[in-house]
Amino acid sequence: MPLDIPHLYRLGIVGAGQIARMTYQAAVKLGITPRLFAERFDDSAAQVAPMVVLNHPDALAGFATDCQVVTFEHERIDIGLLQALEENGNLLRPGTKTIRAAFDKLHQRRVLRHRGFNVPEFAEILGPDDVLDFASRFGYPIVLKTIRAAPPGQRGFWVVDDRNEAMRVLAEFGHLALMAEQFQAIIKELVVIMVRRPGGHIRFYPITEITNQDGICLEIRAPADIGQRLAGEARDIATRLANELDAVGVLAVEMFLTINGLVINELAARPHNAGHFTIEGCPTSQFENHVRAVLDLPLGPTWALNPAAVTINVLGGLDGVDPTQHLGEALAVEGVHVHLYGKQPRPGRKLGHVTAFGDDIDQARELARRAEAALLGRRPFP
Amino acid sequence: MPLDIPHLYRLGIVGAGQIARMTYQAAVKLGITPRLFAERFDDSAAQVAPMVVLNHPDALAGFATDCQVVTFEHERIDIGLLQALEENGNLLRPGTKTIRAAFDKLHQRRVLRHRGFNVPEFAEILGPDDVLDFASRFGYPIVLKTIRAAPPGQRGFWVVDDRNEAMRVLAEFGHLALMAEQFQAIIKELVVIMVRRPGGHIRFYPITEITNQDGICLEIRAPADIGQRLAGEARDIATRLANELDAVGVLAVEMFLTINGLVINELAARPHNAGHFTIEGCPTSQFENHVRAVLDLPLGPTWALNPAAVTINVLGGLDGVDPTQHLGEALAVEGVHVHLYGKQPRPGRKLGHVTAFGDDIDQARELARRAEAALLGRRPFP
Repeated sequence: MPLDIPHLYRLGIVGAGQIARMTYQAAVKLGITPRLFAERFDDSAAQVAPMVVLNHPDALAGFATDCQVVTFEHERIDIGLLQALEENGNLLRPGTKTIRAAFDKLHQRRVLRHRGFNVPEFAEILGPDDVLDFASRFGYPIVLKTIRAAPPGQRGFWVVDDRNEAMRVLAEFGHLALMAEQFQAIIKELVVIMVRRPGGHIRFYPITEITNQDGICLEIRAPADIGQRLAGEARDIATRLANELDAVGVLAVEMFLTINGLVINELAARPHNAGHFTIEGCPTSQFENHVRAVLDLPLGPTWALNPAAVTINVLGGLDGVDPTQHLGEALAVEGVHVHLYGKQPRPGRKLGHVTAFGDDIDQARELARRAEAALLGRRPFP
Repeated sequence: MPLDIPHLYRLGIVGAGQIARMTYQAAVKLGITPRLFAERFDDSAAQVAPMVVLNHPDALAGFATDCQVVTFEHERIDIGLLQALEENGNLLRPGTKTIRAAFDKLHQRRVLRHRGFNVPEFAEILGPDDVLDFASRFGYPIVLKTIRAAPPGQRGFWVVDDRNEAMRVLAEFGHLALMAEQFQAIIKELVVIMVRRPGGHIRFYPITEITNQDGICLEIRAPADIGQRLAGEARDIATRLANELDAVGVLAVEMFLTINGLVINELAARPHNAGHFTIEGCPTSQFENHVRAVLDLPLGPTWALNPAAVTINVLGGLDGVDPTQHLGEALAVEGVHVHLYGKQPRPGRKLGHVTAFGDDIDQARELARRAEAALLGRRPFP
């Protein structure tokens, strides 16, 4: 394969799932062929790209050296290894300061609290006593979560209502590094997606509202059903955060709207599931702007081309249905944008997504739901 | 590379230039990884795809057998070889009936004339006498053209004003199969881009108007500046033609508007340069609809998302400038869509294209021109 072709922009992507696949596509449009650092050759992005290096403890340094810039599809990397690369002069975008805040949630909470951001009460959990102590201070329910970002398909948090439940979670998951957080009564879950160049230029996509179930994102709506003042407040928080972390590329800030206002939930220092609608819904997709930002190229416009957008994730079901086998039925839903990731079906696995637009959210959602149902071999409204 | 991954839709593309690259991208979005039959490993599409077979006289049959469906980026294939594949049961889309009409212009003229389409007077040229005879019947200027579709970068026609010029062309290009055509006084050059499924379902993109220079397409404008009646007439001609040829996939019909009405100039049985604006300018691009059509999947909507679109081809200059080195300046032109093909610069070579939208053609053109000039390292309006 053409590993020797000269490229002005030697871009490496660590990770080869669907986020990398769509980032790869955006780079190809600009004449750039990213290299991928994959787990397996049949990873979603590795299937469609010629320059793939398989993940191996010793391979990352060589991969980084082959690239002018390395960016990331996920935050699940040994931070010490990344810091060594940065010290060695490799250009990581985003850098370890941002990645650590996204990967290590305890570290993130400490940094955010220290800088005056609104985060829930939290504590590190080293054993049962820490849980009991936390619960006695803030009351049940409490949220137990893994400190490290969970890999796809693995649960990363548990809401526990009492001591017994808490002990059950500890018994089963106590081998993972855990933390506790005060439970938030959530009015809405918002995702603020922004992109930032190394010099600090920032652009915002329309704020999105998401519906999660068991920690898996099901539906994304843009724009979020919030007023201008709240949207402005959310963008202000995200701007301060991005500047604080020297973020480069897409930074997605998941926020809870609670009765006490906006609370930061999670960070992702990469294109985000909630931004897939930007492929067809904005002049420049989050993927292209991520590529532009990490290569320090001018950012493209990010406004919404339509009044309303809905993206629905296509999740593998217990019946093992393969959406590829129902592609025709889904494409028959006029005007829906169907994306499949080339992944083998497994229950709960993200196999693709559909995006639809409309004059309002309901109109867009109905179209998207019909396409999703078609892909899963179901009747539209069961 | 993952040659053993099972795919429901094993799609092969013969050719690996920029048309194949953009078709590849559209397929990947749908979860499909096309195989490519390339001239060289550094062909535009071959650079970005893992499953590439190098063109070799004996390789095509094996390539076709590995695929459920084979489609084409260009028409420059041995038609006998393709007919043998079809007889062998390989599914070619479009089929040889369509490909031959696009590749063999003399055959095409005969078929079209026979079926009652409006084509210029024409004759096969086997020697000087045929030219003199043709000129004596229809007068100078006449057009001499190669019967076979010319490869990229090679001139395929010459307008000759007198006998001396005609003899010069014959002396230089008489080794190629040539034909003569009556010269057309062209008011406009139009391209009707349509897509057709095997069952006969057809969709039209907005009709485009193009500016050529020395046989190279420079600028594409959509919609064409013609009235509804003429547009309807053009679509009627294209529909009859597509049905006549059993076309599958995108069929682009280049037409001249003359004082005698619409005259068919050329056919292309594949996505066409004039349809690049459909990537951002229509709900479904010509590339995605080509993939859908050749896989017999439902076609997507083809209407224009904007009042006016202009695409300008980025051609290599005599100065050898590489547009990749000026990507930043081009992306700074707000709202322009920049596409680069990963090709080495050579004078006259298509290295990329830029598309811009606006409320009218002038507005879109100004933006596109600024981006084109930036990519070529020129001041916007020299």
